[in-house]
Amino acid sequence: MFSQRVENLRPSPIRSILSVIDRPGMVSFAGGLPATDVLPAWSGTISRELLQYGPSEGDDDLRAVVAENLRHLGVDAPMERVLILSGSQQGIDLTAKLFVDPGTTVAVDDPTYLAALQVFRFYGARFTRLGSGPRSEPSEQARLAYVVPTFANPTGVCMTSRDRDDLAAWCMRTGAVLFEDDPYRDLVYEPCDRAPVTARMRGGSWIYQGSFSKTFAPGLRLGFLAASEDVFQHLVVAKQATDLHSSRLSQRIVHDAITAPGWVTRLADLADFYRARRDTFDAALRRHVGDLASWEAPSGGLFFWLRLHEAVDTRTLLADAIDRNVAFMPGEEFSPGPPAIGTMRLNFSHAGRDDADGGLATLAAVLRDASRSPAA
Amino acid sequence: MFSQRVENLRPSPIRSILSVIDRPGMVSFAGGLPATDVLPAWSGTISRELLQYGPSEGDDDLRAVVAENLRHLGVDAPMERVLILSGSQQGIDLTAKLFVDPGTTVAVDDPTYLAALQVFRFYGARFTRLGSGPRSEPSEQARLAYVVPTFANPTGVCMTSRDRDDLAAWCMRTGAVLFEDDPYRDLVYEPCDRAPVTARMRGGSWIYQGSFSKTFAPGLRLGFLAASEDVFQHLVVAKQATDLHSSRLSQRIVHDAITAPGWVTRLADLADFYRARRDTFDAALRRHVGDLASWEAPSGGLFFWLRLHEAVDTRTLLADAIDRNVAFMPGEEFSPGPPAIGTMRLNFSHAGRDDADGGLATLAAVLRDASRSPAA
Repeated sequence: MFSQRVENLRPSPIRSILSVIDRPGMVSFAGGLPATDVLPAWSGTISRELLQYGPSEGDDDLRAVVAENLRHLGVDAPMERVLILSGSQQGIDLTAKLFVDPGTTVAVDDPTYLAALQVFRFYGARFTRLGSGPRSEPSEQARLAYVVPTFANPTGVCMTSRDRDDLAAWCMRTGAVLFEDDPYRDLVYEPCDRAPVTARMRGGSWIYQGSFSKTFAPGLRLGFLAASEDVFQHLVVAKQATDLHSSRLSQRIVHDAITAPGWVTRLADLADFYRARRDTFDAALRRHVGDLASWEAPSGGLFFWLRLHEAVDTRTLLADAIDRNVAFMPGEEFSPGPPAIGTMRLNFSHAGRDDADGGLATLAAVLRDASRSPAA
Repeated sequence: MFSQRVENLRPSPIRSILSVIDRPGMVSFAGGLPATDVLPAWSGTISRELLQYGPSEGDDDLRAVVAENLRHLGVDAPMERVLILSGSQQGIDLTAKLFVDPGTTVAVDDPTYLAALQVFRFYGARFTRLGSGPRSEPSEQARLAYVVPTFANPTGVCMTSRDRDDLAAWCMRTGAVLFEDDPYRDLVYEPCDRAPVTARMRGGSWIYQGSFSKTFAPGLRLGFLAASEDVFQHLVVAKQATDLHSSRLSQRIVHDAITAPGWVTRLADLADFYRARRDTFDAALRRHVGDLASWEAPSGGLFFWLRLHEAVDTRTLLADAIDRNVAFMPGEEFSPGPPAIGTMRLNFSHAGRDDADGGLATLAAVLRDASRSPAA
């Protein structure tokens, strides 16, 4: 199941020892810890302890809150199987480390999150497509199945309940490790079945991850994962070897935010705010590119996915667009193999009403110009 | 020079686009950025911009300060070749990603930092020893040479000027990439030549890294590296794929701390504080284990390195010691190959005077007991 390199994965004895040094009365000459007395007295609200080295798994109070949230989602993970990440991009790197050798097959949607493809490719993966049609029949066996089932990046699609069931069943039947990436689940604008694929697993191996970047603040770089028992400890050791642990200050800030009385209201307000932005963007799209492309308004997440009527490779349009001060993501970049030509991913969360309108007007002009001079 | 996987290393087009979206007038539909308006108004001193996604290389004001410090050390690295890390452990992982294939030879000291050995091993490295004697003659050719020349972990040794010159010359002559890890350089208690090996390179490939964990706060997980031009951009792309970028809040806090008027004084005070701890520890060592081991007081860093008179594998003593509430690091763990038996690494920075004295008394008892029952 694991990559070859996992044979060489050894927990650091230092990190193992660090886990006992908090025992009352223990004198530790083991770690390379600064004296806590000389850590900066940086702020009244931040204790010096937080500025000291911490556990690789993350701080327990944050892990406990994450575990409680996972329980509500039906994901079987006590806090002992929660690992705090330096952003969920790190979860992808750790997972690739553990599972991807040169030539390993990873099953993915087409299109899918390009920075996941980038990481899997870096470790030597080849891809098979989960594809459309019955989810239960990817074209070949895979060691790992990577999915963003809820408001997928880049398409915004929310996977159906049936497809979720089928994917879980396929993973259990074939032994593929399910890797569910779920950063957008709280940015929900219309009802859809968001129950994690992971919650449908009965046995089998899985990793489920989420992020605080979309609901709180990306700049703090904080996410989390939970995993089945056969996988979890390897992830912790890989995390040790990668960055020892995540920022304890970020962990404290996020913990305090998501346990504050206003958090649930904040999530609802955030969804309202983004729903309004989506609707504004949708209207501007109809105004400017209604005759050039088709799309569905996403029921969650951050992106519109445009299919152009004309099959122009949008990678060739990017430089022109940027020259005219509008940036977009060519949809072709999100394919694990030869891409369907003529797609764009447009983020609607960042730009305000006027910028969205002006930017889409410019983008429409870029598309019309390309259409007029196909040889260019 | 590079690992096989570097052939598959592609910069994320998103990250490339993000580097132009700050241009005045640019409307970006490219990234998955939250609206800056809905980022938490977290604190008066932390701007919302800091909570947004940032550049993979790190924030420019911190990179500029690091570059200025490097200039004073004679390291040839403008801020364009400074990469902010999520702790210097991350620099080891990124470097291993770029250079280590299964079977790749890495030249290291014996003993050396065990979490570096752990990472290199994980990627499949075999080791050759830089060894004692003329530095210019490691026993075999290596792709990468990893060293902690200034107050080495675990031995505390400060490499001589002659050895530094020889190592740089050897790297330049053989094409080995120099990887200099320098987290302890500011914890200096007696004069020694601390000019980086990197500063002696004329051409060749190199990575130099440092940490803010020892002089400021480990809990924030922040370090930095600089590298020669042929290597730097690959490190940035590997960093993108690993965690996008490091915490911008940590970067801001560290930037403000190390540019504050009191910083130079703080470093001097810190060295004074640790020098006193070292001396106290040295005296306690003489009192308790003077007849059991030999050592030299280190002229910097955080560790004493004990060579026991009796060749007992200290890994076998650890459980007993921890049962008696004292933790140490078995020196045998730090060897890239079969270790010299009968060594211990003792950290003197964390424990106060009474704890150090009591802990060493206990440790002496553990050693005497082991000596009395060699069959146990």
